Amino acid sequence: MPKPNVREEILAAGVDTLHRHGFNATSVQDITDAAGVPKGSFYNHFESKEALGAEVVQRFMQNRKAHLAILRDPNMAPLSRLRKYFEGMNQMFAKNNCSHGCLLGNFGAELSDQSPLIRERLAGAFDEWSKLIANVIAESQAAGDMSKDFSPKTLAGFFLNGWEGALLRARVDKNRAPLDQFLEVSFAKVLT
Amino acid sequence: MPKPNVREEILAAGVDTLHRHGFNATSVQDITDAAGVPKGSFYNHFESKEALGAEVVQRFMQNRKAHLAILRDPNMAPLSRLRKYFEGMNQMFAKNNCSHGCLLGNFGAELSDQSPLIRERLAGAFDEWSKLIANVIAESQAAGDMSKDFSPKTLAGFFLNGWEGALLRARVDKNRAPLDQFLEVSFAKVLT
Repeated sequence: MPKPNVREEILAAGVDTLHRHGFNATSVQDITDAAGVPKGSFYNHFESKEALGAEVVQRFMQNRKAHLAILRDPNMAPLSRLRKYFEGMNQMFAKNNCSHGCLLGNFGAELSDQSPLIRERLAGAFDEWSKLIANVIAESQAAGDMSKDFSPKTLAGFFLNGWEGALLRARVDKNRAPLDQFLEVSFAKVLT
Repeated sequence: MPKPNVREEILAAGVDTLHRHGFNATSVQDITDAAGVPKGSFYNHFESKEALGAEVVQRFMQNRKAHLAILRDPNMAPLSRLRKYFEGMNQMFAKNNCSHGCLLGNFGAELSDQSPLIRERLAGAFDEWSKLIANVIAESQAAGDMSKDFSPKTLAGFFLNGWEGALLRARVDKNRAPLDQFLEVSFAKVLT
């Protein structure tokens, strides 16, 4: 009978290695080596690397839940929460020399045309994340702190996608300036 | 002696296959098969797949030169050129079911931490592209058509990175709405 924690060890190692090296550059053996389990044990728990990749997307979102709670902090004005959340994200990526980027963005670039299963999970994860941002924007608009010329949904998509693009550029440039400029311009001109 | 057109055939096939399938999912054999040349001929012309990848970045930019000329069209107002150029890009990606995305963005996500050589070429290509957009924005600011509260360089980076992020989301969602909403919000709120 498979040990119950082997599955968990493979999943945790999958999140880490697939995030660091990308999906196609990582083999099942790389993942089981990182997990410290025999390669043969992988297929007792996952049908394929693709099946693991789909679970990795969901686990990646779960791992971000604590940080995302800032977006609902009742002690801060809506836009302050949004700013604090993304300043924390920028800080985290900059500390890491702008390496690795966002697993959702990376998988999106690499796998959207290769794996319908993973693409669908990514679409769900981005939708969930966008909705949390749209809720903050809706609160801000309701409080009269932001113009209503675009819907919360449109502005949340614009903002989240723009941040993903800025992160991609920061990785290419190995420089956090695109991330900081993204927040500066967005808060001065878009979220107003 | 190697035939002079074999190198060109490999390079053209490299642009196409690496764009369609990504760098790590494509083998040298996939590229030589697509080029219709023997696998063994690859290493007469390129030191490695990475060396080809670096040239592919430059060729990809060269292939875009004709379309980029819109940005310098003296018969159109600066912001109309920018809008026409990106509307053309959105149309092109939407026609293709939002598949494949931008080779620069894809390589950026996949290779920024894997290949210093390709990362450097990508940084140069993004910088070149950003400068063309910054020139248009500077013209628009000089003509009094746009606020000068941010520099052309900052706005060009914000705009180009945001468009790359919108393209990534359009690929994940298989829906052009993020691309169209990106232009709508940018022209209403940022490039004003």
